[in-house]
Amino acid sequence: MAKTKKQKLKVIPLGGIGEVGKNLTVVEYGDDIIIIDCGLGFPDDDMLGIDLVIPDVTYLEKNCEKIRAIFLTHGHEDHIGAIPYLLRTINVPIYATRLTLGILQNKLEEHHLEKIAQLNCIKAGSVTKIGAFSLEAIRVNHSIADSVAYAIGTPVGTVIFSGDFKIDVTPIDGEMTDLTRFGELGKKGVLALFCESTNAERQGFTPSERIVGDSLDTIFASTNKRVTIATFSSNVHRVQQIINASEKFGRKIAVTGRSMISVIKAATSLGYMRIPDGMLIGLEEMKRYRPDQLTLITTGSQGEPMSALYRMTFSEHERVKVNLGRDDLVVISATPIPGNEKLVSAIINELLRKGVEVVYNQVADVHVSGHACQEEIKLLTALVKPRFFIPTHGEYKHLTSNKALAVQVGIPEENILIPEIGKTIELDSRSVKMGQQVPSGKILVDGYGVGDVGSVVLRDRKHLAQDGLIAVVLAIDTEGGYILSGPDVVSRGFVYVKESEELMESVRLMARQSVERTLDSGNCDYNSIKSNLRDDLTKLLYNKTKRKPMILPIIMDV
Amino acid sequence: MAKTKKQKLKVIPLGGIGEVGKNLTVVEYGDDIIIIDCGLGFPDDDMLGIDLVIPDVTYLEKNCEKIRAIFLTHGHEDHIGAIPYLLRTINVPIYATRLTLGILQNKLEEHHLEKIAQLNCIKAGSVTKIGAFSLEAIRVNHSIADSVAYAIGTPVGTVIFSGDFKIDVTPIDGEMTDLTRFGELGKKGVLALFCESTNAERQGFTPSERIVGDSLDTIFASTNKRVTIATFSSNVHRVQQIINASEKFGRKIAVTGRSMISVIKAATSLGYMRIPDGMLIGLEEMKRYRPDQLTLITTGSQGEPMSALYRMTFSEHERVKVNLGRDDLVVISATPIPGNEKLVSAIINELLRKGVEVVYNQVADVHVSGHACQEEIKLLTALVKPRFFIPTHGEYKHLTSNKALAVQVGIPEENILIPEIGKTIELDSRSVKMGQQVPSGKILVDGYGVGDVGSVVLRDRKHLAQDGLIAVVLAIDTEGGYILSGPDVVSRGFVYVKESEELMESVRLMARQSVERTLDSGNCDYNSIKSNLRDDLTKLLYNKTKRKPMILPIIMDV
Repeated sequence: MAKTKKQKLKVIPLGGIGEVGKNLTVVEYGDDIIIIDCGLGFPDDDMLGIDLVIPDVTYLEKNCEKIRAIFLTHGHEDHIGAIPYLLRTINVPIYATRLTLGILQNKLEEHHLEKIAQLNCIKAGSVTKIGAFSLEAIRVNHSIADSVAYAIGTPVGTVIFSGDFKIDVTPIDGEMTDLTRFGELGKKGVLALFCESTNAERQGFTPSERIVGDSLDTIFASTNKRVTIATFSSNVHRVQQIINASEKFGRKIAVTGRSMISVIKAATSLGYMRIPDGMLIGLEEMKRYRPDQLTLITTGSQGEPMSALYRMTFSEHERVKVNLGRDDLVVISATPIPGNEKLVSAIINELLRKGVEVVYNQVADVHVSGHACQEEIKLLTALVKPRFFIPTHGEYKHLTSNKALAVQVGIPEENILIPEIGKTIELDSRSVKMGQQVPSGKILVDGYGVGDVGSVVLRDRKHLAQDGLIAVVLAIDTEGGYILSGPDVVSRGFVYVKESEELMESVRLMARQSVERTLDSGNCDYNSIKSNLRDDLTKLLYNKTKRKPMILPIIMDV
Repeated sequence: MAKTKKQKLKVIPLGGIGEVGKNLTVVEYGDDIIIIDCGLGFPDDDMLGIDLVIPDVTYLEKNCEKIRAIFLTHGHEDHIGAIPYLLRTINVPIYATRLTLGILQNKLEEHHLEKIAQLNCIKAGSVTKIGAFSLEAIRVNHSIADSVAYAIGTPVGTVIFSGDFKIDVTPIDGEMTDLTRFGELGKKGVLALFCESTNAERQGFTPSERIVGDSLDTIFASTNKRVTIATFSSNVHRVQQIINASEKFGRKIAVTGRSMISVIKAATSLGYMRIPDGMLIGLEEMKRYRPDQLTLITTGSQGEPMSALYRMTFSEHERVKVNLGRDDLVVISATPIPGNEKLVSAIINELLRKGVEVVYNQVADVHVSGHACQEEIKLLTALVKPRFFIPTHGEYKHLTSNKALAVQVGIPEENILIPEIGKTIELDSRSVKMGQQVPSGKILVDGYGVGDVGSVVLRDRKHLAQDGLIAVVLAIDTEGGYILSGPDVVSRGFVYVKESEELMESVRLMARQSVERTLDSGNCDYNSIKSNLRDDLTKLLYNKTKRKPMILPIIMDV
C-alpha cells in the first residue's frame, strides 16, 4: 500500500446525523476502509407502511474492495440492525465484544446469515490492527452491557469514537467507563473526538443505573402484589437488578416476550446475567405461587401493540391466563422514545382503569437514561483534549448543543465541525474540513422489499390514507366513440357507501357526462378521457364533501 | 317545574375524560340542563384523514327541550371548538366572558353562524340564574386571559367546576385566581369539586407567566439580531410580554400568521392587549429597520406545516421575503403538545442548519404551563373543602394522580369518584354514585362530513396506507363461463410499477388462472370469483413481497 504524507483521513457519516437511529460511519485512509457500526432506524410517521429504514450504502458498494472490517460499539438496533442487509452485498469480518456478538448472532439466525458471517470477538482494552488502522476498544457504560468506544490509531493521529456512553461511577457490573484510558490517550494527544450528542441538551449528570435498583427495592418492600416489570430486553443490567430485588424479597421470576426470553438466554449463557438456581419458573407455574411470591419480566415498555405487556393489558395474552387486575402492580421501567408517548400512555391508562397499580417514570425513579448529559460530555472532552471535536449521533439541535459544550471546555470554535450526512470529513494532523459529498440517505424496507418503495409510492399511500379512493371503470367503443359499458364506481376509504348512495349516484352520473363530453369532442384518446374524468370528479367531490379521494379511472379494452 | 327533595343532580361528562381535548359536561336537574364548555379534539394518529373530533351529543339532541344554556370557561379550542357543530341542531344562549366571546365570534363567522348565535357576556364575579341553577363565574389564571371557573348553586348544594386553571400570584393583568372566593365558598360548604387534572402528575407549583417576560428581557438585552417569537396566538398575556420587552429595547413589532393577526386584533380592540402607538408595523415595512430594531411575532410554535413559522423556516413564505438566517434569533415560546414533538424538532433543526440562533424550552425558560401542578391542585382543594371530589380533564393516569392529591388533603377515598365518559354522576347532599350510561364517544369530522367516516372507512384507509392497492378489472361472459376481456391490473401505493414489471405480470397471470379455475368449477357467481381472486392474489403477493395490498376485484357487466 502506497502511503504518502499528503494523504488525508476521511470520515464519512452515512447515518446517525440529523436523525436518531441508523448509525454508520466510514473511516477511510488510502486503500483501507473500516466501518464503525451499522444500524437501522424506524420509519417516521409519514413513511406509511414502511417497516425499517437503513442507510444508503452505495458508497460502500462502490468501494467494497477497500473495506477491511466492521467494528461495533454495542448491541442496540440502531448500531447493529442493518448488518443483515449489508452482509448480502458486503461480507467483511465483524469485530465486537462478546455480548454484542451474542445479540448479533440471534439476528443473523433470523435472516439465515449465521453461516456466512465472519464474527470476531474482542474485549475492552484489546487492540486490533487492520490495514492502516489500529483499533483499541475502550470500556464505556451504556444501557446495554459490554459497550465500547474506539480509539483508532491512524497515520494522521488518533481519532476517538465515543459510541453511545454515559459515566456510571457505580455500575452494576463494576466496570466503569475507562476514564483513565481516555485521559492517557488525551495526554499523548488525540487528533479528533467524535462524541455522541443524544443528551447534549440536558444539564447535569445522568444518574447511575443503580438508583433504579433502589427504587425497585422500595417498591418490593411496600407491596404484596404480583409485580410485573416491563423494560428493554437489551438492558441486561436492568434485568439483573430486577432479578436481584426479586431474590431479596423471596420472589420467583417468570419471563414473557420473545426478545426478553432470547436476550436473557444469551446473557446468562455468556455470563452477563446471573439467575439463582430454581428462581426462574415457567409462566404455567405461576398459578402455584401467591402474588407476593412472583415477579414477571416482560417486553412492551414502549407500548408496542404486538408486545407481551400490550397483550396482557388488553387481555389478548393466552399464556398469562391470569389477567392483570387488582392484585397486580406494573412497573414501566423505561421512558417512551419520541413518537411512542401515546402508545405508552394508552397502556398505563388501561391498566389503571382495570385497577392495576402502575409505577412509571413520572411517579418514581424507575428508569435512567443510557446517554451522557452535559457534565459527562464535558468531562470526557476535557480528558481526551482533542484537537478537533465532531459532535455526532443526534438531530441538528443536539449537535449544536454538543458543540456549545466543547466550546465551554476550551476547544476553539474553528476546531469544531458539525457533520452532515454523506459529507466527507477530511482530517490531517493540522486541519479538519468538509470534502466531497457521497451518496447517502434513507433506504426504506417494506416487507422483503429494500428500496423499492420510493417517493411516488409513498405519495400515493398518503393520498389513499387521507381520503381513500374511487375507481371508475368503463368500456368504450373507440371506433364508434361511445360508452359500451359502465361507468361502474367502486370506493374504498372514502365514505360508507351504504349511507352515501345519493353521492355515489352523482359520481356515476358525472363520470358518464365527463366521458361523453370528451368523446363528443372527437377525442377518443384514453389519456384525455382519464384526465378529464379525474378533474371533473375531483371538483365534484371537493365541492360536495371538501375531500379529495384518489380517482382511479380504468378503461377496459373489450 | 316540579322539583321534589328526592331528585338528584346529574353530571354527565361527554368529553374531557380519558383523553385530551373536547371538553363538554352536562349538568342536569329535573327539567333543566346546562352545558359547561363545548370543545373539539384533534385526531389520533390512527384516524387517517380526519380533521377534527367532536363529542357525541345524541343525549343532548334527545333532551334538547331541557337545555337552558351553554357556559364557557375560556376561549381554547378544546373548550369552545365544537360550538359551531352543536349550534346547527341545538341553538341555546351562550354565556362567556368578553375575550372568550370575542374569540368565539371569529369562529362563528368562519362558519357563517354569527347571526343565529345568542351570545351573552358575563364577568368574573357575576351570578347568572338559569332554571334550577345559579352560576357564579370565578376568576382563574390560565394560558389565555379572561378564564373563569364556575360555582353552580343547585338544589342539592354547590358544585364547582375548576375549568383549566393555575395559580399565578404575579399575573400579567393583575388578576389572580380568586382564591378568596373559593375559600369563602369552601367555608359555606361545597358539595363537589370537579377539578382539572392536566398537570396532576407534576410536582410543585407551575411557574408564573412573568418568568417568561424575564427570559425575554435577557434575550433582548444580549442580542442585536432580529428576534422572531412563535407562540400560541390565544396566549394574550404572552404576546403582551413580547410587546413589553420589545418596547423596552426599542424594537418595532410585526405580526404574521392568520390566527395571530386575528387574536391580536380582537384582544387589542377589547382592551386585553395594549400596543403603544406607532409600534406595530406591516411586514413590508420591516426592510426599513435594522435587525436589532425588529421583533416578529408569529404562529407555528407547534411546528404546524401550514403555519407562518414553518413557511419561513422552509422558505415558502412569500411576504417575509427576507429568509431567516444568520441575523436572526428565533424563540419557540411553547412546549410541543404530545404528538407534535417531531414537527417542532424538525423546525428547530432546520433553523439551526441555516445558522439561525434558536432559543427553545430545553435551553431557556421561554414557556410556562397554563395548568396547575400538584401543589396548586391541593391548595384549591384544601380551600374549597368539597364533600366529593371528581377529577376531570385528563387521561385516566392524570385522573388517578389527581385522586391521590385529593386523598392527601383529606378527602376520604370513598368520596372521590373517577368519572367515565358518558356515565352519569348522580349527586345529592349525602352521596355520589355512578348512574346510567348515555350515548357518548367521538364523532369524526372529515371535510364537510360529520360522522360519516366510521370504522369501516378508517379500516380501509389504514389498509390502503399500509400497502396500497391493486385493482383487477375483467369482463366475463357468464353464459359461456369465460373471460371476455382482461384481467387488467392497476396498482397504487404498492410498488413502483415501472421497476416491478415481472411482479405485475405474475399478478395478471395469477388473476387469470384464479378466475378461470372458479369458472371451470361451474361457479359464475361474482362473489365467489371476487373472493377467490382476493385470496389467491393476497397469498401470491405475501409470498413474493411480504406485503398485503388491498385487492379490489371489479367485474364488468358487458
